[in-house]
Amino acid sequence: MKIIVDAFGGDNSPGAVISGAYMAAKEFGDIILVGDEDKIREYAKNNSIAIDDVNIEIIDAKPVIEIEDDPQMILREKMDCSMAVGLRTLSEGDGDAFVSAGSTGALVVGATFIAKRLKGIKRAALSPIMPTDTGPLILTDAGANLDCRPEMLVQFGIMASCYMQRVMGIESPRVGLLNVGSESTKGRSLDMDAYKLLQKAPVNFCGNVEARELPWGVCDVVVTDGFTGNIALKLYEGLGGYFSNSLKGMFSGFPGAVAAASIMPRIKAFRNKMNTTDIGGAMLMGISKPVIKAHGNSDDKSFYRTICQARDCVEGNFIEEISNALKEV
Amino acid sequence: MKIIVDAFGGDNSPGAVISGAYMAAKEFGDIILVGDEDKIREYAKNNSIAIDDVNIEIIDAKPVIEIEDDPQMILREKMDCSMAVGLRTLSEGDGDAFVSAGSTGALVVGATFIAKRLKGIKRAALSPIMPTDTGPLILTDAGANLDCRPEMLVQFGIMASCYMQRVMGIESPRVGLLNVGSESTKGRSLDMDAYKLLQKAPVNFCGNVEARELPWGVCDVVVTDGFTGNIALKLYEGLGGYFSNSLKGMFSGFPGAVAAASIMPRIKAFRNKMNTTDIGGAMLMGISKPVIKAHGNSDDKSFYRTICQARDCVEGNFIEEISNALKEV
Repeated sequence: MKIIVDAFGGDNSPGAVISGAYMAAKEFGDIILVGDEDKIREYAKNNSIAIDDVNIEIIDAKPVIEIEDDPQMILREKMDCSMAVGLRTLSEGDGDAFVSAGSTGALVVGATFIAKRLKGIKRAALSPIMPTDTGPLILTDAGANLDCRPEMLVQFGIMASCYMQRVMGIESPRVGLLNVGSESTKGRSLDMDAYKLLQKAPVNFCGNVEARELPWGVCDVVVTDGFTGNIALKLYEGLGGYFSNSLKGMFSGFPGAVAAASIMPRIKAFRNKMNTTDIGGAMLMGISKPVIKAHGNSDDKSFYRTICQARDCVEGNFIEEISNALKEV
Repeated sequence: MKIIVDAFGGDNSPGAVISGAYMAAKEFGDIILVGDEDKIREYAKNNSIAIDDVNIEIIDAKPVIEIEDDPQMILREKMDCSMAVGLRTLSEGDGDAFVSAGSTGALVVGATFIAKRLKGIKRAALSPIMPTDTGPLILTDAGANLDCRPEMLVQFGIMASCYMQRVMGIESPRVGLLNVGSESTKGRSLDMDAYKLLQKAPVNFCGNVEARELPWGVCDVVVTDGFTGNIALKLYEGLGGYFSNSLKGMFSGFPGAVAAASIMPRIKAFRNKMNTTDIGGAMLMGISKPVIKAHGNSDDKSFYRTICQARDCVEGNFIEEISNALKEV
């Protein structure tokens, strides 16, 4: 198995990517790092990372697509950026999965047109993992498609359900439609139509779910359009960050240290529960091979975990499973 | 000034409504309680609430519109429910503002067709107050209109801006459009068109705001369509409730009490910051007189505060201010 990794994406690249890739290569399989070879070798040398002692191959690609670039540039002016070269390597069969922490927009465009969509899939969906009280849930779509049709939402639900089953090991993932009320007649026409289609889809559809129920783990897969999903994801992250910051403030200084000392195991347990770094990045579902968007602020451990997630996708035959499920529709 | 209060709406009605109305009547002005007079008098008697010693008038109305009723029933089968009678009293000029903790859907329909919209207003918008790190923000629309046109979003922004200015005392409220990115070209066509219109509107438009910035108090007014707003509101409430519950768990039992003792002022400060009960309910903006939706689980103090909010709306001439602002458009 070979995992292709974009070495020049994310706030901490290339350092964190190289370290993460090295950790993964030491533990399992082959890694292909795509990006400026001189810079990669220089960083590895300066930080005593023995990349030549493990199965890390480097494919040289000097340009980088930046967050502020128009996503379409990956198909035009920046066809030779590390992300595009990585996706082409994937598409040509020289690797089994692709990981990048670069521009989400460019990754959606690049994956769709370079690595191509799975046969029958209307749109690729960005599907991050979010923490809940009872375990992780997957949200789909979280921003790849701002305007959706009902049948797209159904495909998102099927793909995310396959993921939770094959990669996360949940036997019969509960699929919920994010809506403003629990009754089937609630929501916009998009939601009402998607509701009817999801009832007939090969998933364990548990009906509408309300946003206030999400933190409690009401379902394993949350389906919605990309605009709503992006707002929900960012609010989840924003409030999570805000509360975590407030907690830090509460436990700061001398009185804080005294307080923290007596309930440290509880604080740690809560932090672990709310931490998704260990799970990896956001799947871009619907592409013919696993493509994963690593968090922009990923550190070396997060890159390592996201590469592990890519391995799990390949080992779980998750793409094949999607194709099979789609045949049922 | 007379505030009309629906005595039979909310989880704790009529008890909490009667107690809250009594607190308000003792402190200022007249209250009209609408609902089953026998039950109101019986509750007051059994709980030693001397409603006859303060300026509380009762208008008898036996039927109640339930949360599970079709909202349209307020215009048909349930025309004589406490909510409808209250709105009619408001519309006929016998009161200056209306407060209810009953069905949101019925209140939107009833207020629109019984109390009527302000001249020139396309749709009424549900506008709750949410806590942030730097003070309250108002979200509009949070569920009255699932499908919106750009010009509706602009009106919501103007109305909510007037509210923050006249009732909350913010000199130049910053109005943000909830979107998936900060650039003006982000979002659906609804958002891009609303962005252009908001730039020309008589508000202090600060551009697009991302959901992750909301807890930090990035603006005073957040404008969006009712579907997105409802999801954002409920996620905000849900995550807030989840974290507050987790905090409780951390500080429970003996080790928790020890920890809490050393940082109690910080815990209290955080709780106070995140508490909106003191602010009141959600304005239904765009109606010809102030109509406020009290939280469904309001206790007596929340009802008291929501009645105070209604008083502040009347005293702040907030409706007149909206009319003036609309003339500028």
